Amino acid sequence: MRKYIIIFFSFFVSSLFCQKPNYTVSKERLLKNLKKLSEFGINKNNGNDRVAYSDYDIQARKYIKEYMKNLGLKVKVDYAANIVARKEGANKKLKPIAFGSHIDAVPNGGHYDGPLGVIGGIEALETILDNKIITSHPLELIIFTNEEGGVFGSRALAGKLNNDALEVKTASGFTNGEGVDRLGGDQRKVFDIIKSSNDYHAFVELHIEQGNILNKSNIDIGVVTGIVGLKWWDVTIEGFANHAGTTPMDERIDPMITAANFILLVKNIINETPGNQVGTVGKIEAFPGAPNVIPGRVKLSLEIRDLDESKIDFLFNEIEKEAKIIALENETSISFSSININASPALMDNQIQTLIIDAANELNYSFKKMPSGAGHDAQDMAIIAPSGMIFIPSVDGISHSPKEFSSDEAVYKGTNILLNTILKLDKEKL
Amino acid sequence: MRKYIIIFFSFFVSSLFCQKPNYTVSKERLLKNLKKLSEFGINKNNGNDRVAYSDYDIQARKYIKEYMKNLGLKVKVDYAANIVARKEGANKKLKPIAFGSHIDAVPNGGHYDGPLGVIGGIEALETILDNKIITSHPLELIIFTNEEGGVFGSRALAGKLNNDALEVKTASGFTNGEGVDRLGGDQRKVFDIIKSSNDYHAFVELHIEQGNILNKSNIDIGVVTGIVGLKWWDVTIEGFANHAGTTPMDERIDPMITAANFILLVKNIINETPGNQVGTVGKIEAFPGAPNVIPGRVKLSLEIRDLDESKIDFLFNEIEKEAKIIALENETSISFSSININASPALMDNQIQTLIIDAANELNYSFKKMPSGAGHDAQDMAIIAPSGMIFIPSVDGISHSPKEFSSDEAVYKGTNILLNTILKLDKEKL
Repeated sequence: MRKYIIIFFSFFVSSLFCQKPNYTVSKERLLKNLKKLSEFGINKNNGNDRVAYSDYDIQARKYIKEYMKNLGLKVKVDYAANIVARKEGANKKLKPIAFGSHIDAVPNGGHYDGPLGVIGGIEALETILDNKIITSHPLELIIFTNEEGGVFGSRALAGKLNNDALEVKTASGFTNGEGVDRLGGDQRKVFDIIKSSNDYHAFVELHIEQGNILNKSNIDIGVVTGIVGLKWWDVTIEGFANHAGTTPMDERIDPMITAANFILLVKNIINETPGNQVGTVGKIEAFPGAPNVIPGRVKLSLEIRDLDESKIDFLFNEIEKEAKIIALENETSISFSSININASPALMDNQIQTLIIDAANELNYSFKKMPSGAGHDAQDMAIIAPSGMIFIPSVDGISHSPKEFSSDEAVYKGTNILLNTILKLDKEKL
Repeated sequence: MRKYIIIFFSFFVSSLFCQKPNYTVSKERLLKNLKKLSEFGINKNNGNDRVAYSDYDIQARKYIKEYMKNLGLKVKVDYAANIVARKEGANKKLKPIAFGSHIDAVPNGGHYDGPLGVIGGIEALETILDNKIITSHPLELIIFTNEEGGVFGSRALAGKLNNDALEVKTASGFTNGEGVDRLGGDQRKVFDIIKSSNDYHAFVELHIEQGNILNKSNIDIGVVTGIVGLKWWDVTIEGFANHAGTTPMDERIDPMITAANFILLVKNIINETPGNQVGTVGKIEAFPGAPNVIPGRVKLSLEIRDLDESKIDFLFNEIEKEAKIIALENETSISFSSININASPALMDNQIQTLIIDAANELNYSFKKMPSGAGHDAQDMAIIAPSGMIFIPSVDGISHSPKEFSSDEAVYKGTNILLNTILKLDKEKL
């Protein structure tokens, strides 16, 4: 009998002290707000054309700013046109916990890539307000400017922008400089907003996976271990253009043959090396490019992604070495020109990964640690703050398409994890 | 002693009856005229821009017509704007021996492709006039309209034009219809000039090889056995476009991989099948065609050429069959769409080949029987007349380029063969 009393007492104590309450968001309000945002820029394909700096973008931002002001949040627009909504914390000395994503879309994109992290973040804040939860840290929801066209807003915060970026023409037709001014920023001052590692306690981004890993395995939550870095090369193969009728097969110096061997070489080296790296040839063109002319030149793109930058370099060196041999065997030449796209791998903070896993365990959601193959605002935020990312499944892994879809249940679960990760971060010294 | 007298007598008789005189042309005049023609449309690259229907074309035609009238030839322009210069023969009942080529060039082309056969033909006529040779047959030099943009003039004579051809926009900016009118033809009447097999005794075209076979082997004359036919296909490979970062290697349905295998398949099947056929993939494009997107579709061109149309079909069937297997293995699909370009193989007349060989033997020129991989006016003339072609070496096989070149000696030898082939044809019943 005494044994039973001890067991009962243990349960009582543990429920009192150890098992903190797991808040959950309002599924109904979350989905309603996500749907409302999708209406800004929705097109006849049921896709979304809310490209950064467009009128749709301006209208959606205006709507969201009003919505957040009505919640009692302090809403500001920085020089890079990032929207920052702040809820003060109990302890004035503590740095804010930041979270958020973007609301701009690729042309004819979907309704989840970006909006999930923004509307999920607002819902987390609204749940905190509803439950009168007082956090020690201030909370800051950030809506980053022009993610799809070069992660402009987060790069501005991380100090990774250069002057050229202001001149880049975006899908809206405006340059980043013009666009930032349109959204209420100030292109002359975008370099003034750079943050340091003293400015944030942490950053968390909720996002759709955009791949098929969670969906295929029916797993609720992806705990992102890092965002892969990527490098690009322009590949040029030189042969000798000639008449396709008068040049016998054994007289040809045909760069198309080398190109074919190169494409298969990339696939083989990437596949045969242990690891999760990916390598892609997405672009190819032959010159002059006529059915009756043996091309003189073929140009291709090469992209390699991995969480480890030195692995990318290793793979490239292997490819380059083998490609030169293949090219020579075919009497052609091959050259690689590195493209500066500045996407270094970004590891997510281990402690934040653990908090996300704790939240998933407490809510009984299945989870999987995984790298992100796509770039995100968290990639740049990781430079200045311990960062984490929460993924939810994308049906069939489709993204950047009107067919991009995540189930209501997935959206709800992801937002619950975001909310509870924020609350856990508030208790955590990182 | 009597024995010696018989031998001497035999020599005397043979020199009197069998060994007809081999006329040779004026090398100096020939080269001067070739150079003069090159000046119409010469550009800063030392190439030629005398595209069909251009002002350069009009100026050159005017000059040549005047030159030929001054020789006493009867010069006419037919409805398709072909220039025909005629020298009457002794026997009014005999059909004309025709010869010629074209003077239009590809943009930034060379000075030999076409002009050799025209200036060589004029030189042959001028030598015949100089030597007061009276042929039994009438002689007709034809300068065909717009060879480079679809063998327009010779197809008009052979009855192979359709209405669409008149609407085709050419490199000059004019349609064939507009161009023909510019040159003094009449587009409304181009279908009235169709010739039949009763209209010509024979047709002979002198041309540069545009390949490297004669040049490499140091052979003077190519005796063309036939002009290869060619077929074109648009090849489409369908995969599934996806994010290059979020799609693991083993989840990809990448048509670029199938395309690479297809290019190598074409090469292997063409190379491993006995014969002189050629197969070319000259054009390739991936869609959407971005370094960070696995393409959803790759489009390529396929061209196969051979002297035997059934061989082309056989090779295509082999390629199609194997390609479908390769595509399936990669979870992609491949489809072929035939392009109607109407280029059937054209065999050259055996008797004319023999006459060309006889002429080469008599002049002590080396020769080689060979197919023509490129299309020529003779391809269509062969439909209505026993036809032959004489090739001379192209240095390094280069053509359609300012670097197109044939030596003065080669030009001279080729023209001597043309002259003597014409004279032999005059004696021959075909």
